[in-house]
Amino acid sequence: MWNVDLGDVDAVIERALAEDLAGGDITTMATVPPDLKVDARLVAKAPLVVCGLFVAGRVLTKLDPSLRFTAKVSEGNRVTAGEVLAVMEGNARAMLAGERTALNLMQRLSGVATLTRSFVDAAGGSARICDTRKTTPGLRRLQRYAVRCGGGHNHRNDLGSGVLVKENHIRCAGGVEAAVRAARRRAPHPLRIECEVTDFAELDAAIEAGADAVLLDNMDDERVRAAVARVGRRAIVEISGGVTLERVPKLAAAGVDIISVGALTHSAPAADISMLFGQKPK
Amino acid sequence: MWNVDLGDVDAVIERALAEDLAGGDITTMATVPPDLKVDARLVAKAPLVVCGLFVAGRVLTKLDPSLRFTAKVSEGNRVTAGEVLAVMEGNARAMLAGERTALNLMQRLSGVATLTRSFVDAAGGSARICDTRKTTPGLRRLQRYAVRCGGGHNHRNDLGSGVLVKENHIRCAGGVEAAVRAARRRAPHPLRIECEVTDFAELDAAIEAGADAVLLDNMDDERVRAAVARVGRRAIVEISGGVTLERVPKLAAAGVDIISVGALTHSAPAADISMLFGQKPK
Amino acid sequence: MWNVDLGDVDAVIERALAEDLAGGDITTMATVPPDLKVDARLVAKAPLVVCGLFVAGRVLTKLDPSLRFTAKVSEGNRVTAGEVLAVMEGNARAMLAGERTALNLMQRLSGVATLTRSFVDAAGGSARICDTRKTTPGLRRLQRYAVRCGGGHNHRNDLGSGVLVKENHIRCAGGVEAAVRAARRRAPHPLRIECEVTDFAELDAAIEAGADAVLLDNMDDERVRAAVARVGRRAIVEISGGVTLERVPKLAAAGVDIISVGALTHSAPAADISMLFGQKPK
Amino acid sequence: MWNVDLGDVDAVIERALAEDLAGGDITTMATVPPDLKVDARLVAKAPLVVCGLFVAGRVLTKLDPSLRFTAKVSEGNRVTAGEVLAVMEGNARAMLAGERTALNLMQRLSGVATLTRSFVDAAGGSARICDTRKTTPGLRRLQRYAVRCGGGHNHRNDLGSGVLVKENHIRCAGGVEAAVRAARRRAPHPLRIECEVTDFAELDAAIEAGADAVLLDNMDDERVRAAVARVGRRAIVEISGGVTLERVPKLAAAGVDIISVGALTHSAPAADISMLFGQKPK
Amino acid sequence: MWNVDLGDVDAVIERALAEDLAGGDITTMATVPPDLKVDARLVAKAPLVVCGLFVAGRVLTKLDPSLRFTAKVSEGNRVTAGEVLAVMEGNARAMLAGERTALNLMQRLSGVATLTRSFVDAAGGSARICDTRKTTPGLRRLQRYAVRCGGGHNHRNDLGSGVLVKENHIRCAGGVEAAVRAARRRAPHPLRIECEVTDFAELDAAIEAGADAVLLDNMDDERVRAAVARVGRRAIVEISGGVTLERVPKLAAAGVDIISVGALTHSAPAADISMLFGQKPK
Amino acid sequence: MWNVDLGDVDAVIERALAEDLAGGDITTMATVPPDLKVDARLVAKAPLVVCGLFVAGRVLTKLDPSLRFTAKVSEGNRVTAGEVLAVMEGNARAMLAGERTALNLMQRLSGVATLTRSFVDAAGGSARICDTRKTTPGLRRLQRYAVRCGGGHNHRNDLGSGVLVKENHIRCAGGVEAAVRAARRRAPHPLRIECEVTDFAELDAAIEAGADAVLLDNMDDERVRAAVARVGRRAIVEISGGVTLERVPKLAAAGVDIISVGALTHSAPAADISMLFGQKPK
Repeated sequence: MWNVDLGDVDAVIERALAEDLAGGDITTMATVPPDLKVDARLVAKAPLVVCGLFVAGRVLTKLDPSLRFTAKVSEGNRVTAGEVLAVMEGNARAMLAGERTALNLMQRLSGVATLTRSFVDAAGGSARICDTRKTTPGLRRLQRYAVRCGGGHNHRNDLGSGVLVKENHIRCAGGVEAAVRAARRRAPHPLRIECEVTDFAELDAAIEAGADAVLLDNMDDERVRAAVARVGRRAIVEISGGVTLERVPKLAAAGVDIISVGALTHSAPAADISMLFGQKPK
Repeated sequence: MWNVDLGDVDAVIERALAEDLAGGDITTMATVPPDLKVDARLVAKAPLVVCGLFVAGRVLTKLDPSLRFTAKVSEGNRVTAGEVLAVMEGNARAMLAGERTALNLMQRLSGVATLTRSFVDAAGGSARICDTRKTTPGLRRLQRYAVRCGGGHNHRNDLGSGVLVKENHIRCAGGVEAAVRAARRRAPHPLRIECEVTDFAELDAAIEAGADAVLLDNMDDERVRAAVARVGRRAIVEISGGVTLERVPKLAAAGVDIISVGALTHSAPAADISMLFGQKPK
Repeated sequence: MWNVDLGDVDAVIERALAEDLAGGDITTMATVPPDLKVDARLVAKAPLVVCGLFVAGRVLTKLDPSLRFTAKVSEGNRVTAGEVLAVMEGNARAMLAGERTALNLMQRLSGVATLTRSFVDAAGGSARICDTRKTTPGLRRLQRYAVRCGGGHNHRNDLGSGVLVKENHIRCAGGVEAAVRAARRRAPHPLRIECEVTDFAELDAAIEAGADAVLLDNMDDERVRAAVARVGRRAIVEISGGVTLERVPKLAAAGVDIISVGALTHSAPAADISMLFGQKPK
Repeated sequence: MWNVDLGDVDAVIERALAEDLAGGDITTMATVPPDLKVDARLVAKAPLVVCGLFVAGRVLTKLDPSLRFTAKVSEGNRVTAGEVLAVMEGNARAMLAGERTALNLMQRLSGVATLTRSFVDAAGGSARICDTRKTTPGLRRLQRYAVRCGGGHNHRNDLGSGVLVKENHIRCAGGVEAAVRAARRRAPHPLRIECEVTDFAELDAAIEAGADAVLLDNMDDERVRAAVARVGRRAIVEISGGVTLERVPKLAAAGVDIISVGALTHSAPAADISMLFGQKPK
Repeated sequence: MWNVDLGDVDAVIERALAEDLAGGDITTMATVPPDLKVDARLVAKAPLVVCGLFVAGRVLTKLDPSLRFTAKVSEGNRVTAGEVLAVMEGNARAMLAGERTALNLMQRLSGVATLTRSFVDAAGGSARICDTRKTTPGLRRLQRYAVRCGGGHNHRNDLGSGVLVKENHIRCAGGVEAAVRAARRRAPHPLRIECEVTDFAELDAAIEAGADAVLLDNMDDERVRAAVARVGRRAIVEISGGVTLERVPKLAAAGVDIISVGALTHSAPAADISMLFGQKPK
Repeated sequence: MWNVDLGDVDAVIERALAEDLAGGDITTMATVPPDLKVDARLVAKAPLVVCGLFVAGRVLTKLDPSLRFTAKVSEGNRVTAGEVLAVMEGNARAMLAGERTALNLMQRLSGVATLTRSFVDAAGGSARICDTRKTTPGLRRLQRYAVRCGGGHNHRNDLGSGVLVKENHIRCAGGVEAAVRAARRRAPHPLRIECEVTDFAELDAAIEAGADAVLLDNMDDERVRAAVARVGRRAIVEISGGVTLERVPKLAAAGVDIISVGALTHSAPAADISMLFGQKPK
């Protein structure tokens, strides 16, 4: 029970394995005996927040169902350079065939979790760090899970599970009030109505029209503070755009409820993790 | 004819659209009239090498088959900040629904092409810059295409379309010679036999056993030069591991044939591209 | 632009055609010349609210892309017995092969729309009629669309696009307050927190804990009125369970915001629609 | 071994779970501890014929492979209100996530079996009650199985596994004789040739041309009796159209072999079944 | 309208193209300009019965939707060596990429049609030549179509669209009579009941129990004649097993209705067809 | 670990089972008790090289996961007529339902292995026998595996895992030299550059331009010998086209490295294998 949709995880894994192994692993088939067993371990080569360890395990056990994979740390843990994340023992061919796919996935997920954690720490608990829809195509759910592993929160999963009236909707609908009212009239009942605003007139109009949340678009710190005061808890306040790690404490202090950061899934550098094989095959 | 497998491109696009639009675009459906037309343009917000412009076009025309999408630059072109990459006109709902997916794809691909170009320029034409299998799961073929757009070359696509005998294969097979001979004996005829070597003894053994190419693993510049001389054109020489942009000219000067760089697909930052809508809907 | 996910519609159609036509239409192939053209019309055989006319059209044009299908009424229209809903002309083999599939879909969707409309009329505009998750497996989105065609509103599409804390969640979480707070802490930002309550103590607890909406479970009309008063617009009030057409006006008058009715998708009788072929083939 | 294609059952289940759970069960994830165990039971709330109990079990064990599901009655059994159909014990999250999908399927299937049983009883064993192709798209095989559970028989599964020459085929082929002969000439060997007839001239022509079965279309009871006599066991006699429960005994007495009833799968009301959780989680 | 399920054809083609082109056509991409046009023709290199010409066309137009493909002969035609089957003009890259797949399919289908025609000619019109389920996995429907192109008839498509009680069923059911009666009691209405028999006692039992057809298993010509006489038109008579081309006229003369031949789909040699490119690219 | 991609094997099996069993096995369901157990054995009815025994086992265990399947010989073994290849015990319904599919696959694969072995024996170890891309659509990987079982080698798997410049590429590229150079410039690093040549001028040009291998197209034995001498080990020499079993020793003696034979996968007759059931069900 990883709090993540395992069906989706397995679909990602199958796709990744198909990309790399649809034609078999020719080198391994040619050079490694079929029944050879080896042990190996996953090791952090730099400080990071662990995410996707179980994904790596699923990749390898998909290739060798009898492989023994033992996690040494938990999802979401911070680890230091050199720390062993998992040990495993199993068929040599399977491990060699799956090594790259396992690492490709885990390094990316741990990268997202690690970056998220730095933003969450900067916010100090007084505002939520949220992801966005700027995710890598095909990996959205796993990246959202990585954000949660890093202590972040999730924004809407997709265009069908959240209402966010943006500038272009407003223009097409004929103004903030018309857009928010249309959304209230037609959106499914369980969804909040959120509206992006660029100035205080729009902010007032959105609140008047019944928005449950407002998204402050690219406002500077002072205006953010003023906007929060103006809302006066009548709606949830989110800020997005131009959010750097340095700015997070100020935004949190300004009283916003949610700080959403595209970079969490967009430009998190991959975490540095290696798979090391034991000294001698068995 | 984009020199890329369009079936694969469309599969990636469908997956990306399914991730974001499986539940429809509730906000747009509620606020934007069904038949409204708008125009928009894709604009570079920083210098970059263009890649995936046609992918963005396919995303949008998949949602609105009558959308007119006109590229203003070609794949592989270098552009400056502010340059218009494409203009389009079509159904407002379709454009709003597809904007994020189009950008998510194109920004990542242009990022890979841009980084690759910087390595290729550093190599100055005397060595090939190659990608690796350290690609984003699900996007391998598109990323390999992006590497080509940036002037780079492709290494093997997957474990079934290339032979690369690595340290663990050697250990399992019982030595360089045994491993290379086994690969020669069993690999499909059209594939070169390449062997990773860590020292000159292994280098000599690989060449003796009939390797068509050798991969120098993490050797410093001086040893690389010596290795190249030792091989004496009896095999293709590749270097991988610890390759930074600064080091590329030296490696090229040392006479290696191929410099492979995991970072091309592993840590290329996304390129900064926006989709801007026209001033007024039509 | 039918305000419905056409990708989902086409998947349903393909599945339905595969069920009926995977082995071809042997009778038609044996008895009908390949190039024969015929005309036909869809006719209501009883009063109904039209829904799925375009679905029937898509079924038939999938089998004969050159078929001309002309709708004579719009989705959501009320029609009387005998009214022509659409006329078409095309290949005889395609029409015979697709007739049953087209009708199977359209009759069910119009049935849902027709039943929904009767509930919406009974509510008289002062409360929303909502669907539930008691939909036919595989047809959820189409049935939700049919509910909208009948003037109803949609509740959550699935367990991932809405929060509804029910009795068993409350028990597992250790009480209403704990459950609502847990949901507020962990649910994605765009979702309202709704809580099912069975008595006024739970109602008060849910509101206190910050529920955005409460679901009154199987309360009689008097208690519903009292509950609405008790909430005092601090939350949205929904009633569900044991809702009959007769009771709807009373519930609406009691001031509830939402009346959700499983029967809309669970026991709507199929609408009576026929496909009649022209007097003579052409 | 349920005499039903389990591959098809699992495909239906996967589709149903995907519809409801593709985005996870947010409420349950937020409020229910991951390892909590509970027990529950499926209970009939009205008299019904059981069908799909094993389908409900498969839904739940798909979400919790270690769940213990024990059926208390057999497929096809008649049960009374209040009777326990199955008991189960397993992970609370899995049960909450799967409850609606399990019920959605089982209630519909038991509804079909229950209605079929009433027709079969009315026929008193002297004529077969058959289903038609008027099934719910995506559920045909399961509904046909439900018909068998209710004591009914199956007509052709699809247009490729049975020959039924209908009015429009006859018109396109140029008469009953031409149509039946064409079908005999071209249809696969294992299929009977059945022809729909609207009067005695057509009936005679069909028999003359070698039809193995005739379908009497919307004939009244007297004409049915006359038709049966006229056929004189030279062909199987089926009646379809306008068949109500009241009329079945008369049709059976008239000597028809097969009575086919679209309503079995078209308008069977869902059976009333609940899933009740144990008093306290464990 | 090819009297064949085009959905199935396209699935076969997509699978075949995926097998050959999932990694692109590297050679062609490297050596052939993207916009070059060429013409080509399909030519029979030996006498054959044409089948699958439209399949070849679909393969190529899938790769180049603007390719012009003109058939010069019809499906089922007999052609001589050297005859041009089709001419085409289109993109050189697409033609080179699709050539092998187009030929792989068409050569196999024409091979089946050619062999079938020889059996049909040998039967001289007085008995039907039927295929069996001994088809190439994945190609059953296309091979059955090829049998029809060669003048043959189809036996059951699969285990769900025909009843054939064989020796092992008889043994499991406890005798011919029990088996045939069980099949009659439970099989869907549109299917004939056929029973394999090895001697006259079984033959009599099958007819008594109401079999619509009997399959004579490996009987010699004399016994076949006697069996036909014994049946006396009370059932359809089929012969299977050990059927050679030489024996067909004798079996037909013996009065059997159906001669089924596994070799039609099992060991038909591929027909010899080439794709020749025009003298100069355009 | 069969040195074959089991994912691909299972996809083939699922497709084959779907073709035959999508509508269930009506005869077996009607006549065989659900829990009956039987034993059976696979027997060679003629001398053959075994291939696909494990595939047959996977087919049957897919239908009855508790079936016990015991191979009596190994993949690649030569066996004589009458030899038992495997024994099994399991559910009677599953075995009857899967028998034909298991045999259809295994007979074809053993046929390919058997034919390959005869060519390999003829070559006497001094040249490699290679397959081609003339495989049965959908079965390429399994057929390539069968070639290996027969002692043969694999040529390129598909157009993306090998470079072979053929006559039409040369014409489009403007000559042998241009084509080979283009291929060298653009092909992925791990692939050899092979070029088809029809005369010595082309042969010389290909070698000059850096081809790693040359394919002699339809040359007679004398010219083959001369070509081998002319190449003088500067490139791998392959011969293809018009290769008969009789000619193989001469070609091998001429010194070619590779003899590729389309017939291995194109016209291998199916091997004769039966599945025999035990004398009495248990």
